[in-house]
Amino acid sequence: MIIDCHGHYTTAPAALGDWRDRQVQALAGDGEPPRPADLRIGDDEIRASIEANQLRQMDERGIDVTVFSPRASFMAHHVGDFATSAAWARCCNDLCARVGELFPDRFAPAAMLPQSPGVDPATCIPELVRAVEELGAVAVNLNPDPSGGHWSAPPLTDRSWYPLYEKITELDVPVMVHVSTSDNPAFHTTGAHYLNADTTAFMQLLQGDLFADFPTLRLVIPHGGGSVPYHWGRFRGLAQALGRPEPAQHLLGNVFFDTCVYHQPGIDLLLKVLPPANVLFASEMIGAVRGVDPDTGHHFDDTRRYVEQAGLAPANLAAITEGNARRVYPRLDARLRAAGR
Amino acid sequence: MIIDCHGHYTTAPAALGDWRDRQVQALAGDGEPPRPADLRIGDDEIRASIEANQLRQMDERGIDVTVFSPRASFMAHHVGDFATSAAWARCCNDLCARVGELFPDRFAPAAMLPQSPGVDPATCIPELVRAVEELGAVAVNLNPDPSGGHWSAPPLTDRSWYPLYEKITELDVPVMVHVSTSDNPAFHTTGAHYLNADTTAFMQLLQGDLFADFPTLRLVIPHGGGSVPYHWGRFRGLAQALGRPEPAQHLLGNVFFDTCVYHQPGIDLLLKVLPPANVLFASEMIGAVRGVDPDTGHHFDDTRRYVEQAGLAPANLAAITEGNARRVYPRLDARLRAAGR
Repeated sequence: MIIDCHGHYTTAPAALGDWRDRQVQALAGDGEPPRPADLRIGDDEIRASIEANQLRQMDERGIDVTVFSPRASFMAHHVGDFATSAAWARCCNDLCARVGELFPDRFAPAAMLPQSPGVDPATCIPELVRAVEELGAVAVNLNPDPSGGHWSAPPLTDRSWYPLYEKITELDVPVMVHVSTSDNPAFHTTGAHYLNADTTAFMQLLQGDLFADFPTLRLVIPHGGGSVPYHWGRFRGLAQALGRPEPAQHLLGNVFFDTCVYHQPGIDLLLKVLPPANVLFASEMIGAVRGVDPDTGHHFDDTRRYVEQAGLAPANLAAITEGNARRVYPRLDARLRAAGR
Repeated sequence: MIIDCHGHYTTAPAALGDWRDRQVQALAGDGEPPRPADLRIGDDEIRASIEANQLRQMDERGIDVTVFSPRASFMAHHVGDFATSAAWARCCNDLCARVGELFPDRFAPAAMLPQSPGVDPATCIPELVRAVEELGAVAVNLNPDPSGGHWSAPPLTDRSWYPLYEKITELDVPVMVHVSTSDNPAFHTTGAHYLNADTTAFMQLLQGDLFADFPTLRLVIPHGGGSVPYHWGRFRGLAQALGRPEPAQHLLGNVFFDTCVYHQPGIDLLLKVLPPANVLFASEMIGAVRGVDPDTGHHFDDTRRYVEQAGLAPANLAAITEGNARRVYPRLDARLRAAGR
């Protein structure tokens, strides 16, 4: 089985964007904000938006199941306040859950959190619990920079995050560390901010000792870990200089990397540098890069090709495409097992 | 000849730090700020600080010449105002020039600019001209984020930078795009901020069309380009989505990458992905990572080992260790030729 641990609902029906537009307009004093219950999208619309897009390409690429979370760039936690994010997260999480209900064999939902800049992360716990316990979310996306590119939040090792980690570990869901739209003109959202966030999060973890306090917490760093595998020697050397253990010992029991790296040499590096147990197959399809590579004739984000051509031993390939995801996402594993898979 | 295009004076005599401390204290209302002329460091002190450190390791590693600029993390453009940075840049640039005078065969000076957050980059032109024309600087370091990790400056393609580029191209010196200390607790300076800046700068250039306006401007992105070579497929795909030309056509006539990547797989990737004409040998020794890799018994930052073990054809290796630097840094080439080298 091929499990893609990193998909977003980038193709949601237009009514979702309209709802958000009205919410943003209300923040500017134009009308009342819509309620989550005002969002009306029919099952047929959801089916169509998935079948023509993610599902079609999953079939073409042989991807069996995708962990499916709200569109990352739309989370935009910097917009409005906690109430804004709370209503918006509810809408987006509900929709991903409905995709999982309509295509139970193909999509497992993951949730966004109603984060807001400067607001205590503990405020996200009710939506986290609702998403996991009521909607069946198998993972949660955590934004290390809810300010949208201004990086005003403390590092992920700060104790202000701890109440959230306590609930996350209690629920036994992994965290994908994923920023959203850049509100800073210096940072292109998918070309700089996403990759920078991955590197930044890893270095925060390297500096700290978060997993001493949360030994079962599991963080997935997307986009192949930003620059981390490419600069693995630098991180090892910095760990040494900072008096931290080797990153392999210090972090790799709890930190995992996805394969959203869109060319063969990058995937080869990722798989050479990191142990197979720490890499999870993913494509982020349909996401930041949707085009066809003119050099290969295949989609840039068709990462299965790269992973399968990386020369992995069969057992390692199976771990990366399925086994690691079942281990890191136990609620996904339970969902699959309940269906006899 | 082996030319290292990326060295910093990280081992300057303590008097430099003392001078800076007094300058910072004066900003806090404690005393008068020192003048550049108040900095007194003898030639013997400079010699000792170099011979025991950079020069010793250059000899051990077979590096002939280093392009030597002020300590990057000490630039700290976010401290004080333009006058603060102007006095500080003068001190630091003078010292690097003196290293170049004391060891003319081994060090060629490069300059920092007196940038200050929110201040017109054109204010840096007098120090730039002084450094190049009077001190013999062969390159200049430009900080894309003088705020120190808050990223309040416009992208490098913004027209506010243009007067500086006009003078830089007139002087025919390359720019190394290099941030300084992070004043933001989210970003570790050398483990996140430096790498993020490299990625950010490249993506800014990809989005824009700077080299249409400055066809002879040459930018060196340090630290192996941050995450750029590792995510080269992503950047190609984003360029396609943004309607930009292939990065190889759009940027590689003007953008170069150094080899400050501290493990063999990273260097192998860099040299596989980027054309040999776009890679310049560098180590940033003595810099962020000073330790010995327990796995190899060699310094992490002994990048010559990695580059020489990457399986390059001899002509490409020679380009990376010498020829490209002579081409990209014509004032370095002139300096070497004047000495019959």
